[in-house]
Amino acid sequence: MKEIKGMKLNKNTKITELVKGMENIGFQATQLNRAVKIIEKMKENKAVVFLSFTSNMVSSGLREIIAQLVKEKFVDVLITSAGSIEEDLIKTEKPFLLGSFDADDKELDKKGVNRIGNIFVPDDRYTLLEDKLMPFFKKLYARQIKNKRLISPTELIFELGKEVEDKNSILYWATKNKIPIFCPGITDGALGLNLYFFKQKFKEFGIDVTADMENLGKRVLEADKTGAIILGGGIAKHHTIGVNILRDGLDYVVYISTGTEYDGSLSGARPKEAVSWSKINEEGNYAYVEGDATIIFPLVICGFL
Amino acid sequence: MKEIKGMKLNKNTKITELVKGMENIGFQATQLNRAVKIIEKMKENKAVVFLSFTSNMVSSGLREIIAQLVKEKFVDVLITSAGSIEEDLIKTEKPFLLGSFDADDKELDKKGVNRIGNIFVPDDRYTLLEDKLMPFFKKLYARQIKNKRLISPTELIFELGKEVEDKNSILYWATKNKIPIFCPGITDGALGLNLYFFKQKFKEFGIDVTADMENLGKRVLEADKTGAIILGGGIAKHHTIGVNILRDGLDYVVYISTGTEYDGSLSGARPKEAVSWSKINEEGNYAYVEGDATIIFPLVICGFL
Amino acid sequence: MKEIKGMKLNKNTKITELVKGMENIGFQATQLNRAVKIIEKMKENKAVVFLSFTSNMVSSGLREIIAQLVKEKFVDVLITSAGSIEEDLIKTEKPFLLGSFDADDKELDKKGVNRIGNIFVPDDRYTLLEDKLMPFFKKLYARQIKNKRLISPTELIFELGKEVEDKNSILYWATKNKIPIFCPGITDGALGLNLYFFKQKFKEFGIDVTADMENLGKRVLEADKTGAIILGGGIAKHHTIGVNILRDGLDYVVYISTGTEYDGSLSGARPKEAVSWSKINEEGNYAYVEGDATIIFPLVICGFL
Amino acid sequence: MKEIKGMKLNKNTKITELVKGMENIGFQATQLNRAVKIIEKMKENKAVVFLSFTSNMVSSGLREIIAQLVKEKFVDVLITSAGSIEEDLIKTEKPFLLGSFDADDKELDKKGVNRIGNIFVPDDRYTLLEDKLMPFFKKLYARQIKNKRLISPTELIFELGKEVEDKNSILYWATKNKIPIFCPGITDGALGLNLYFFKQKFKEFGIDVTADMENLGKRVLEADKTGAIILGGGIAKHHTIGVNILRDGLDYVVYISTGTEYDGSLSGARPKEAVSWSKINEEGNYAYVEGDATIIFPLVICGFL
Repeated sequence: MKEIKGMKLNKNTKITELVKGMENIGFQATQLNRAVKIIEKMKENKAVVFLSFTSNMVSSGLREIIAQLVKEKFVDVLITSAGSIEEDLIKTEKPFLLGSFDADDKELDKKGVNRIGNIFVPDDRYTLLEDKLMPFFKKLYARQIKNKRLISPTELIFELGKEVEDKNSILYWATKNKIPIFCPGITDGALGLNLYFFKQKFKEFGIDVTADMENLGKRVLEADKTGAIILGGGIAKHHTIGVNILRDGLDYVVYISTGTEYDGSLSGARPKEAVSWSKINEEGNYAYVEGDATIIFPLVICGFL
Repeated sequence: MKEIKGMKLNKNTKITELVKGMENIGFQATQLNRAVKIIEKMKENKAVVFLSFTSNMVSSGLREIIAQLVKEKFVDVLITSAGSIEEDLIKTEKPFLLGSFDADDKELDKKGVNRIGNIFVPDDRYTLLEDKLMPFFKKLYARQIKNKRLISPTELIFELGKEVEDKNSILYWATKNKIPIFCPGITDGALGLNLYFFKQKFKEFGIDVTADMENLGKRVLEADKTGAIILGGGIAKHHTIGVNILRDGLDYVVYISTGTEYDGSLSGARPKEAVSWSKINEEGNYAYVEGDATIIFPLVICGFL
Repeated sequence: MKEIKGMKLNKNTKITELVKGMENIGFQATQLNRAVKIIEKMKENKAVVFLSFTSNMVSSGLREIIAQLVKEKFVDVLITSAGSIEEDLIKTEKPFLLGSFDADDKELDKKGVNRIGNIFVPDDRYTLLEDKLMPFFKKLYARQIKNKRLISPTELIFELGKEVEDKNSILYWATKNKIPIFCPGITDGALGLNLYFFKQKFKEFGIDVTADMENLGKRVLEADKTGAIILGGGIAKHHTIGVNILRDGLDYVVYISTGTEYDGSLSGARPKEAVSWSKINEEGNYAYVEGDATIIFPLVICGFL
Repeated sequence: MKEIKGMKLNKNTKITELVKGMENIGFQATQLNRAVKIIEKMKENKAVVFLSFTSNMVSSGLREIIAQLVKEKFVDVLITSAGSIEEDLIKTEKPFLLGSFDADDKELDKKGVNRIGNIFVPDDRYTLLEDKLMPFFKKLYARQIKNKRLISPTELIFELGKEVEDKNSILYWATKNKIPIFCPGITDGALGLNLYFFKQKFKEFGIDVTADMENLGKRVLEADKTGAIILGGGIAKHHTIGVNILRDGLDYVVYISTGTEYDGSLSGARPKEAVSWSKINEEGNYAYVEGDATIIFPLVICGFL
């Protein structure tokens, strides 16, 4: 058995050296090291790699790191929530700002500033979003009329990526590299509210949320091996592991999460629970790291960049 | 200022007596008492009451308690995830079983048992689900052809409620009492997998997820006051508070959650963060109770039954 | 296997009825029900019952409930931290007050108010504590000189109980009923600071913290069976389970805790980890309930009162 | 205001570069960056630095990193629990081993293996501990008889450090560099059980736990500025911040913790609560990082080594 021991550290230690040493530190440091090894296996075995993430990852500076992974085709399929789409789009024009967890929220509301943890988003970002989405929805609507069929969430997002020129954008690289972004809850968030406003005028405009399922199923079924890196919980996590039931489960999985197990929530469920569901296969190589992805994910991923 | 003090308890103490005494106990006991007071205000002021819940609530015995609230028209609008729909439906035929958090998941997988925390769901429940959904989807498809438009998630769920005869079912009472169930992520979960299978044969069948938005917006905009009871996080929570931006925020809100704030996730965000977003109005009366809803919710709600 | 199902609730439902029904609700409701059953076994099998608690339990209204248990000799040994002793003592004279988690702590500091979560403790409580402790320490010092040996923490606390007349006090009933209170970290907290001040003048005054060990060991070794109800973590929890190694582990254990397992902390460790240490015996009947004790403990205990 | 943005990462990125970039990432990454800045201020302003840690830090590979800090006199005062002393001592002879969170604890118990999260400690480590402590206690007892006074916990630990030759040991460097280790709960843990066994034969042997208070008070009162780095909670944390009330609070504080605030526990309390207590002064520069110290602490500290 391996021994627990710390490592010598100094100003010049590389992240990859620390991550290697973490194997022997114990607790979550060891779990983090294991996550890296699982991702190594994913890549060695040429698994189709799913990246699942909640929108707060995009609110944070992980956005640019995810974009880098999409640019480098490190991942093959993205699954996320509506908030990720709208926030990546907003950030192509204006940044989010560094705030504080302890801000006075009434004051912020009066000043027109919205808070996501310690990140601030001034209201003008949402004006900007509306300005971008309304003409875009018109194009989509014209397309709907022409094609005589409703668009799917993935198509919508793919088309949206064409509108973007920001090289730090997830949407930009996803469209460029034809990496699909699945979003089963597309009408949520500000994206949903803008759809609501658009439909006040264009009642016939719609989105067929079932239209992506064949494509998603195909990705799962045609793969020799599948792997997933799952940041946070929510519908993105459930969709990612759920669709892999079609093939008796993911071969390789990494969860990075702050969720708790004790309430039976899917967001907090550990990989071993997913084994019972055939969402992860029995021989499944999986790792679970508990902690905030803004710290964990850069450590886990930087050795692959 | 009020004093902190315990109360005398005995075998015959009623829940409502304990909940009253909790005001003075401090920590989450006090928060729980506050939640009750906020709900009292909701009802006194005739707010339109939104009930948001994640699917694990339906996995648990809270299902029957939620059904009771829908039966008694205590709530006006339900917002939830796909899992809730499928699990309520399964339970109309076969129960979920009491298991253990520490079960051997590989063994369970071999036995065809799926685990949700300490709740077990044998595979036959999903066979049963398929048997129910396939003919149901056919009816919907016939309707789509006849009406020349795609169904919305809320319509789908409303129609599904007509198929149910179980008086302990949320779907049953929602349809009976015309209380809409919004489900912005309808293609997730086993429901989604069944949609996938159905579409293998009936490619034209679809669901227009935008078709519910006008109705949802109307509920929010036409209300004099709105209130929300939010169990857990996820897309259901975000959708509930997000749509209330249309009216500058909810008037009364209760969160019961295990989520953490430190990762900036929406699931863990506290009510005060929602104030910055105008999801809860500045004068908002809100309460936050941290803990598992299977314990907290029965305590909070039983005084209203 | 038992079925998961909710129960009918109304205004008049008794706590004990709810707790019974919780068995079938799942998640932590089921765990709570199990905790009650373990305590039933403790009592049926006449186990020596250890009650371990952190000082925040005494800050809250659980103080009076714990006092009730000591009064009724429901528990045989108490193990806690220094804060519990000082706070029970303060409360014999002046209550703690109901405050808010979101208070402005700089403002509170200026006003001379100390915050424990949503409980406020004005500075005068600590003046009062000093006024009580200084003459008390003098008595103890006289006793030390007379007996030519240092007092132990348990003796100190026993003597302190004699000074108390408040029938809601844990100290009062512990002394009255000769139920020992072990406090391995007696110099912590305000109690410690007062000891520090006293020793400025009376340098020879001391406390022999090892002097309690024989007595504690005896309680563990002479018992036919031992059981423990453990509220929270910290040194009180560790001491309680650690000393039971002497007899190959506790026979019955209930943990009520908010701690997390993932960091390897003793405070967050689950009962099963204690089995590996022979802190809980292999046949150990144990239950773990995750959540705030201000809500959980009254539910668990009221059926025994 | 600063913008939220990610940073380019690759295989060769240094930890210190990542930590710098974390300022702009948001959520806990930003908090971690802030922790580093607070420690920079501590050192720039020549604060007396307290390092507080729970024993699981010593169970893990943080032991060697803490030893390195003590060796380099980066910290001036250590405050910890009994488990840290015994585990550092054990590790001078035999390592702890890398295990698994999901191990079968009954099996482990049969094999004589004790589990701390995912760290395994075979029973022979405790035989070894006994072999080391018994002769050591005899020396202390001889000293007690000669000096006609009981030893204090800090003296005991200082003397124990003299027995150690392992350059990776915290005890070794603490004694070598005359950095005091305060341990207000010295009779807890295996150390306590060994004291219990020793006292079966040598009843007169004792430890005066009050004897350290003057020394601890002096460190706080004579300092121009004080700072604290606090890993985890428990008695070590409370003792560290509590004693700083003597000087109206710490000037600089960093908490790294997994504790939760909602239960009013001291372990989970945030720095701002300590401001209300004058445990941290009002102008206090403090940072709170939520997460497992095995990941967070190496990142925070490596720029100072």
